[in-house]
Amino acid sequence: MFNLTFVDLIDYLGTFAFAISGLRLASEKQFDLFGAFIVGLATAVGGGTMRDVMIGVSPFWMTQWIYLFIVLLAVLAFLFLHKFISEISQTIFLFDTIGLGLFTIVGIQKTYDAGFPLYTCIIMGVCTGAAGGVIRDILINEVPLIFRRDIYAIACLVGGLFYTAAIRYGAPAIIAQSGCAMGVILIRLFSVKYHWQLPLLHAYRFNRFNAQKMHTGH
Amino acid sequence: MFNLTFVDLIDYLGTFAFAISGLRLASEKQFDLFGAFIVGLATAVGGGTMRDVMIGVSPFWMTQWIYLFIVLLAVLAFLFLHKFISEISQTIFLFDTIGLGLFTIVGIQKTYDAGFPLYTCIIMGVCTGAAGGVIRDILINEVPLIFRRDIYAIACLVGGLFYTAAIRYGAPAIIAQSGCAMGVILIRLFSVKYHWQLPLLHAYRFNRFNAQKMHTGH
Amino acid sequence: MFNLTFVDLIDYLGTFAFAISGLRLASEKQFDLFGAFIVGLATAVGGGTMRDVMIGVSPFWMTQWIYLFIVLLAVLAFLFLHKFISEISQTIFLFDTIGLGLFTIVGIQKTYDAGFPLYTCIIMGVCTGAAGGVIRDILINEVPLIFRRDIYAIACLVGGLFYTAAIRYGAPAIIAQSGCAMGVILIRLFSVKYHWQLPLLHAYRFNRFNAQKMHTGH
Repeated sequence: MFNLTFVDLIDYLGTFAFAISGLRLASEKQFDLFGAFIVGLATAVGGGTMRDVMIGVSPFWMTQWIYLFIVLLAVLAFLFLHKFISEISQTIFLFDTIGLGLFTIVGIQKTYDAGFPLYTCIIMGVCTGAAGGVIRDILINEVPLIFRRDIYAIACLVGGLFYTAAIRYGAPAIIAQSGCAMGVILIRLFSVKYHWQLPLLHAYRFNRFNAQKMHTGH
Repeated sequence: MFNLTFVDLIDYLGTFAFAISGLRLASEKQFDLFGAFIVGLATAVGGGTMRDVMIGVSPFWMTQWIYLFIVLLAVLAFLFLHKFISEISQTIFLFDTIGLGLFTIVGIQKTYDAGFPLYTCIIMGVCTGAAGGVIRDILINEVPLIFRRDIYAIACLVGGLFYTAAIRYGAPAIIAQSGCAMGVILIRLFSVKYHWQLPLLHAYRFNRFNAQKMHTGH
Repeated sequence: MFNLTFVDLIDYLGTFAFAISGLRLASEKQFDLFGAFIVGLATAVGGGTMRDVMIGVSPFWMTQWIYLFIVLLAVLAFLFLHKFISEISQTIFLFDTIGLGLFTIVGIQKTYDAGFPLYTCIIMGVCTGAAGGVIRDILINEVPLIFRRDIYAIACLVGGLFYTAAIRYGAPAIIAQSGCAMGVILIRLFSVKYHWQLPLLHAYRFNRFNAQKMHTGH
């Protein structure tokens, strides 16, 4: 019926997992159904939307209804199958991680095809994977989680560096894609398992008077 | 003097009402005149701006000075006629509601004319009406109000569903527009009068350990 | 080696100073290195990015690697030379202020060249200078500083009014640019030195019941 490829399946499962992560936080914040849907949607498609706007193309979900539909399914699953969703949370984490690998690749490739330099492709790959979570955290009025803990965007960055190097040196697509996905997935899995964290920006013993003068308006 | 139509009048009164709502919140938060102007502007034109960027056209207010001028008038009215503004708050609520109906129609039609599918037109209609309030709440550092209470965006959604069905089945424009506007306005009026609210996303009894692991960075 | 003009130098020093201001706040909020980099980047290029998206061109940093590089340098300087950065904070403030003057000019000119009316050019000039700080404050989950104190965006506005008047009446470019830069810089210097502030939007004695009804969702 559908012409569903393996890549499509990862895409949709990843989108579903991203939406579920947004819905969990919306639920904790006592959001109503509409708010929860928007938060799930922002998490699921926000990164790709930001990327598409910046590379100058139509946001992808605006011409493919499946993504909105998946977020709707996520809301329904959260409402009516939440015990089940809770039981398969490890699986959802896996969808989330594999999806992240795919979204990074898609973001880089789409930016490359739009004619941008490789360094921009890497940034757009990270954006596609990570910016949805930032938008979600802004909507729920929290400091974005990825800025304070966990190796999340860094996984996309490392995978992205591999992918763009592969493009640059003409490696076959299959090597570029597998290497990138593998990098993103392994870094995420290890960083969660072993609680890796980035160092903080060093607490700055700063002349308070100057800091306040500098901070005025900026 | 002006070639002012009835629709223009609703447009301008709605814009004025949206700006006033932003200014009220800015005033409570002790914003200065510049900050208040920006908050009023964001509420009044933010939804349409987001829509225009996503459908790939120039934000409407960037080529029509009247909208900025109306927000400036709203700031002046708030400053020098605030007792009067307070006394006519029911009327401003009416402008807000009728304006919301018009903005929904405009958002849907503009998106349709840009060649997007009907489901996207509905979303852009809701965005045009509701996203300004979300941007405003982000600027004043609050959780967006429409995510937590009240039937606001839902009014745009219902009106939008009617409008797109009317487009789809070739109904005359006057039916589509009247029905949509009527739907939005009636739902808003009734939901405020009878304190309708959407159900919350069900509080999720979730295995906390898994939630924290899933939440890392996402 | 580089074809580095004086204007380029101001551009880069201004970008560096904007990034440093973001990094200071990220440091206080215990952000990790990635989060700090993003906050520095948002402050440094956020305003120009928003402007470019709204006038319909590719965000400038996406085709010129130097800006990302400068933000990276700022992170390294903050990490390894923070005592020095602290000692030269007055100089950084000067870079920030002169950079602000240049960014205002660039923002106006770029918008004008894209064919927009003069009032929009002024707004885009202010946006280029000030919106980065707003985005930064949203990311660190604070009310944007420029909405509550200090004459910051107003400096860009005054400089921008001069510049667009100069364009309008055919003054030579050198007059337009010098006048605008001078205006922005002097207003910033004086406002910091003498603690100028805009008046608040007058605290509004508003019928609380009506306010809550109006506020529902909007």
